Amino acid sequence: MIAVLVDGKPTHSVACTDRGLQYGDGLFETISCREGRPRWLPLHFERLRSGLARLRLPFGAFDALQAEIVSLAAQQPRCLVKVIVTRGAATRRGYAPAGDEQPTRIVSRHEWPATNACTAEFRVGLSEVRLGVNPMLAGLKHLNRLEQVLAQQACAETGLQEVLMLSATGQLISGSMSNVFFADDKGLVTPELRECGVAGVMRRVVLQSAAAAGIVVRVVPVELSVLSDAREAFITNVRLGVQSVGWLDGRAMPSDDYAQRLRRQIDAARS
Amino acid sequence: MIAVLVDGKPTHSVACTDRGLQYGDGLFETISCREGRPRWLPLHFERLRSGLARLRLPFGAFDALQAEIVSLAAQQPRCLVKVIVTRGAATRRGYAPAGDEQPTRIVSRHEWPATNACTAEFRVGLSEVRLGVNPMLAGLKHLNRLEQVLAQQACAETGLQEVLMLSATGQLISGSMSNVFFADDKGLVTPELRECGVAGVMRRVVLQSAAAAGIVVRVVPVELSVLSDAREAFITNVRLGVQSVGWLDGRAMPSDDYAQRLRRQIDAARS
Repeated sequence: MIAVLVDGKPTHSVACTDRGLQYGDGLFETISCREGRPRWLPLHFERLRSGLARLRLPFGAFDALQAEIVSLAAQQPRCLVKVIVTRGAATRRGYAPAGDEQPTRIVSRHEWPATNACTAEFRVGLSEVRLGVNPMLAGLKHLNRLEQVLAQQACAETGLQEVLMLSATGQLISGSMSNVFFADDKGLVTPELRECGVAGVMRRVVLQSAAAAGIVVRVVPVELSVLSDAREAFITNVRLGVQSVGWLDGRAMPSDDYAQRLRRQIDAARS
Repeated sequence: MIAVLVDGKPTHSVACTDRGLQYGDGLFETISCREGRPRWLPLHFERLRSGLARLRLPFGAFDALQAEIVSLAAQQPRCLVKVIVTRGAATRRGYAPAGDEQPTRIVSRHEWPATNACTAEFRVGLSEVRLGVNPMLAGLKHLNRLEQVLAQQACAETGLQEVLMLSATGQLISGSMSNVFFADDKGLVTPELRECGVAGVMRRVVLQSAAAAGIVVRVVPVELSVLSDAREAFITNVRLGVQSVGWLDGRAMPSDDYAQRLRRQIDAARS
């Protein structure tokens, strides 16, 4: 059984009136932990704070939250810690928050997944599930994730490790559980996320590391044609890090140069 | 405290691993109950079954669910019963369902809201929050409701009783908690819901009642210009029934003829 703290208490249950369950009214973070410590915690907290502000969700217990993350990560060689912050139990019916809700924080520890995709060919296809366009929610790691659930439900039947998703308007946005970067003759490119998608912490680490290494990354709208034009692709999330794509939508990728450079850069920054 | 049954047991708690909380992976229904009985239950169950099939969520306990709804409604002159069905507690990490989850059903009874908007002028404006376009989720009453939460959060500060929402592509779709109908010289019109929106049970009741009364309703894409062109508007949900709009986006509405006819028709069908 996974270890869980709900508002600091060791329990596995939450109120069924919680607005996180009723409406998906909350945010989450998935944090990679190594050698007993959470990685990139300031970046996770920065995104969380930004999301809370955009949802006008008045959560302030960051000290308690940090202590709980640290305690669950302690003495674990490698694990994932997931944080959920919701607006809390509803104090009245209906979508509108009453304003007097007490936010709920849920911190859970999960085993590091046994499969290490880095050692096998990583196959990526294109999902038929599209991402709804909503600039007010774009970038947030909120709890409304049915699009990703549907995409992965279909992906699981194909033998692919990940699927890329288009927006409703046809722009390439991200993987179902990752961000994505492509290489062409001018350098690296990754989709901008003004209309939809999640602004991943590993995406940010990669953007920072690329800048430090003098690698240009264009953050721009990306068309579907990139799938046939790119000579390299990699996906990013805190679990997989910088994951080279070996096979993309029907063809083997000829290069993984940028991914190798970025992994070295990120490892060097750590030590 | 509200009365709740979770999988048939009187408890207020659910597992924090429930995919309804983790991802909004589930559906809900809000059922109007009068004189001890749920109204339009076959229509609620029909929509729920359709949503379960579209999410490939293998819930089969309809007999137990019906018995629980009936038991919570019994001996209440008037109440709301809310049903949530989720995919259940996660049996592994990640968006993809493992396939062996046991769905969770949550049935809760709520007091009938004290405010009766029908007796006051019902004021409706336009929300700045738009609805993301996703045909795969359109029509479903699923648990991903942040767009409605944001819309009502803003609406609560305006003194409006409801706000209408556009799709990301600029079509008028619905209210934040209701469907909407407009009258023009050719009869009634209500937005089609192929791209987004919730196919409300009361919307369906109105469509059936209109057909029975010989009133033509066009179910078509609706442009924003309807707000200035319509001579009557009403919103529908099972709590408010057919609610005439007295004030729409800056102007008083001159008529409520269709709403009156439809209310009479629906009441007659009941007796």
